[in-house]
Amino acid sequence: MKLTLPPNVSPAQFSAALKAFEGVVGKGWLMASDADRDAYSDLYAPGSEAQWPASAAVAPASTEEVQAIVRIANQYKVPLWPVSRGKNLGYGQAAPRLAGSVVVDLGRMNRVLELDPKLGYCVIEPGVSFFDLYEHIEREKAPLWMSVPGNGWGAVLGNALDHGIGYTPYGLHAKNLCGLEVVMPDGDVMRTGMGGMGNNKASHLFPLSYGPDWTHMFTQSNMGIVTKAGVWLMPEPESSLQLTLDIPNEEDIGWVVDTVAPLKISGLIGQNVFIPSWLGKIVLKGQRKDFWDKPSAIPDWRVKELLKEHKLGYWQVQIRLYGDENVNKAQADVIKAAFKRHLDAPMHEEWWRKGDARNIYDVTVGVPSAVPLQMGDWVGGRSAHLGFSPVVPANSEHVMGQLKRSRKIIADHDVDFYASFTIGGRFANNINMLMYDRDNVAQVENMKNLFNTLIGETAKAGYAEYRTHLGWMDAVNSTFDFNNQAQRRYNEKVKDALDPNGIIAPGKQGVWPSVYRAHAKEGQA
Amino acid sequence: MKLTLPPNVSPAQFSAALKAFEGVVGKGWLMASDADRDAYSDLYAPGSEAQWPASAAVAPASTEEVQAIVRIANQYKVPLWPVSRGKNLGYGQAAPRLAGSVVVDLGRMNRVLELDPKLGYCVIEPGVSFFDLYEHIEREKAPLWMSVPGNGWGAVLGNALDHGIGYTPYGLHAKNLCGLEVVMPDGDVMRTGMGGMGNNKASHLFPLSYGPDWTHMFTQSNMGIVTKAGVWLMPEPESSLQLTLDIPNEEDIGWVVDTVAPLKISGLIGQNVFIPSWLGKIVLKGQRKDFWDKPSAIPDWRVKELLKEHKLGYWQVQIRLYGDENVNKAQADVIKAAFKRHLDAPMHEEWWRKGDARNIYDVTVGVPSAVPLQMGDWVGGRSAHLGFSPVVPANSEHVMGQLKRSRKIIADHDVDFYASFTIGGRFANNINMLMYDRDNVAQVENMKNLFNTLIGETAKAGYAEYRTHLGWMDAVNSTFDFNNQAQRRYNEKVKDALDPNGIIAPGKQGVWPSVYRAHAKEGQA
Repeated sequence: MKLTLPPNVSPAQFSAALKAFEGVVGKGWLMASDADRDAYSDLYAPGSEAQWPASAAVAPASTEEVQAIVRIANQYKVPLWPVSRGKNLGYGQAAPRLAGSVVVDLGRMNRVLELDPKLGYCVIEPGVSFFDLYEHIEREKAPLWMSVPGNGWGAVLGNALDHGIGYTPYGLHAKNLCGLEVVMPDGDVMRTGMGGMGNNKASHLFPLSYGPDWTHMFTQSNMGIVTKAGVWLMPEPESSLQLTLDIPNEEDIGWVVDTVAPLKISGLIGQNVFIPSWLGKIVLKGQRKDFWDKPSAIPDWRVKELLKEHKLGYWQVQIRLYGDENVNKAQADVIKAAFKRHLDAPMHEEWWRKGDARNIYDVTVGVPSAVPLQMGDWVGGRSAHLGFSPVVPANSEHVMGQLKRSRKIIADHDVDFYASFTIGGRFANNINMLMYDRDNVAQVENMKNLFNTLIGETAKAGYAEYRTHLGWMDAVNSTFDFNNQAQRRYNEKVKDALDPNGIIAPGKQGVWPSVYRAHAKEGQA
Repeated sequence: MKLTLPPNVSPAQFSAALKAFEGVVGKGWLMASDADRDAYSDLYAPGSEAQWPASAAVAPASTEEVQAIVRIANQYKVPLWPVSRGKNLGYGQAAPRLAGSVVVDLGRMNRVLELDPKLGYCVIEPGVSFFDLYEHIEREKAPLWMSVPGNGWGAVLGNALDHGIGYTPYGLHAKNLCGLEVVMPDGDVMRTGMGGMGNNKASHLFPLSYGPDWTHMFTQSNMGIVTKAGVWLMPEPESSLQLTLDIPNEEDIGWVVDTVAPLKISGLIGQNVFIPSWLGKIVLKGQRKDFWDKPSAIPDWRVKELLKEHKLGYWQVQIRLYGDENVNKAQADVIKAAFKRHLDAPMHEEWWRKGDARNIYDVTVGVPSAVPLQMGDWVGGRSAHLGFSPVVPANSEHVMGQLKRSRKIIADHDVDFYASFTIGGRFANNINMLMYDRDNVAQVENMKNLFNTLIGETAKAGYAEYRTHLGWMDAVNSTFDFNNQAQRRYNEKVKDALDPNGIIAPGKQGVWPSVYRAHAKEGQA
């Protein structure tokens, strides 16, 4: 990709900044060729990746190097875009929101600094991947399990900071963060929570603070660059029982949610319960053309045939219990009785006991896997996906309303419908996967229109996305309309106070520093 | 109490401000007589309550009235000190940190705006007391239980915002907050989390946000005045089982913590487990003079006698399980087996089943109680208490170290030792109750010296307080020494950006706005 300079930065300034960056990280860790820029682009970009071009990337090896980079960026007014490992697939991967930003690639900072087998936490740097941490835990023989997202090839910290979700009792990854070290936009360093005391022994254990707690001001945020974090890990259970049940019909999701959510809210189910629709199973079996050979959306009659052929329910519920065997058994009895009231079919039971090998494809036992990436192959070509992800209250009224609304909009755009609901407590994340061939211009345009319509109609009905792709960060932010966008306005106020030159991740989640605000409003960013 | 004007405010300015306040709230809701000022003082103040004098109090009835008050305060540069119900006993009650602040008494805003029996949450105003909410839930026959602190006469919201703790699975009260409405220091209003979207249906259900989450920037904070909040409530369990065990010796606390903490971290125990020492039981049986008639600390031999006489262990562990009866039984088996490894005594079992009356003195079943206030009578006279409350990792090494250190310091000051540990997960809150007669000058001075020594020595060892009295907010803040007090410096930066006139709760938790910073450093505030 050719060079796009950051706004208001001259070629000479830019070259001087790069030279200074290189002075910090050393030769080889400043990457600014056309091929380098390609490496930091969005491989799933709807359309050309040149819509979100990085100008260069710099890879520091320590907190001190991050501080030095931030100070140089302030000096030359060069915007930075920090990434942990840059694998934020479907949301922009490593590409920056603001064209010409320099990616700060934290992948070299990949040390596990602490791992406490009894108190159940680790302290990690941003470059630690799910596989890195998994291997570290195995090597140390620590009786701890991770929580991993569906696709675990990214970074533990990047995923948690971006509000990623997993499918264990620790599935709300941002909530496992305890005690951050952050390089602030002026190059200074602060620590959140009890870590504000230099030698504090509970820095990664106590989830509050003395005074205001900043921890979640740094998630989905451009208020600083997190360089170190405490992450809670689940103690390895004595045993684990998985209950599986196929749910025949689309509209059954109503009673399924009304059955699962109360058990989740009461704490009987600890896990985040993932309920994918049939297409989640089919994408693993082949490409779209193997099941439906027309460009139009798979029609209902064909869906029915496919369910029959592949012995699938429209939905599948998998609930996993963790802990003492007798406790799991007693909990399973409650769950089975609750389902039996609606569906007279036995739940399939599968036990794991301490000492057994874990299924390396099963994210509910904390093993990272890239299997769901297979989905990337569904439509063929340079295929990619976007996720439309509104949060809804965890009951049938809201879930059914959301299902019907997005299903109709997606059908109106003649796109395959692939929904899932993850019950995380009092709420459910509804993920609608939209898969497309990046080189099919008409398909990409249709997908963009569809995405805009989904955001608008869903907001009208009173639901917001919890996360979105670079291309829609502003659009989703603008749905947060309470009191003339009060949340955005106060984010901007704090952003300007902490980052007057607007150098950290301008535009992240729709929060622009003053220096680029007009630029962004004119649609130039 | 006579009038103390706020710093840099003339009598004429002050009168004009009061008149303007009265114009907002109406006659009768602006309180500025000597008797009124007494009503907003700290009844437990170590020494004279004139150390922390309010100049007046104003009681708004709505968010709009709070906004108007904040705008007037900006106009006249009058500092405000918001309280929910002003019952923050041991931490300063309703009294302000900065002498001459006007207390904003939110007690009139006491509506329960929503109560959802299935999704398990309410939306409340700041003036809702624990008793108000309890009665509201009972009246609505909603199958929900609250989490209440030891002494439940204050406000649900004020307690949660001040990081109060309770003894159910919802015992970390700040973590039950979901979706705040906040009047900002400029009089504007914002909502946190999904509530940033005006009509959002998951505002009080989804515990994260799109973009940075501000929720905990408003706890133990002076960044705004919270006027409304979603609070999660526990579903009423099918049954509940309490296991009680007396623990004979002081040093047993080590193995007790090593036994309980892993079960709490694994999720088998949901509740915050409170482990008080013997004095917590004795204070309910009479006054100090009934048990020991000398001013010196109760000596060890007398403690041993008292334990024998009253059939008490040095500690008592009470663990309560909530939920399905068979699940509770299976969990209890695990707990009993774990304790049996250390102490061959049966745990006392007590069942509660749906339909049974709840013990109105038992905070572990979510009934608010003021029984622990009885402790206030211990030393006689105008007796009061301070709590020294460091947070320690939940294992024997740290708990025993903390116990020995504070025990020695307290003994060196010839003061009775009354400790408790509450295991909240990976950490324990160690509360050391220090009881004194407010009118005994020597006792108060000794208590102040003791408190200063405890803060200093405990910080040296690497532990911080999670909360403290007005008189020590600066001292505790200064123990947060990482990188030249980075946490305080960034709190100040944000404070100044949001509140240039420094009108909201100056000095709260040691965070001073620029306008009073020099004043505070000189020890004048």
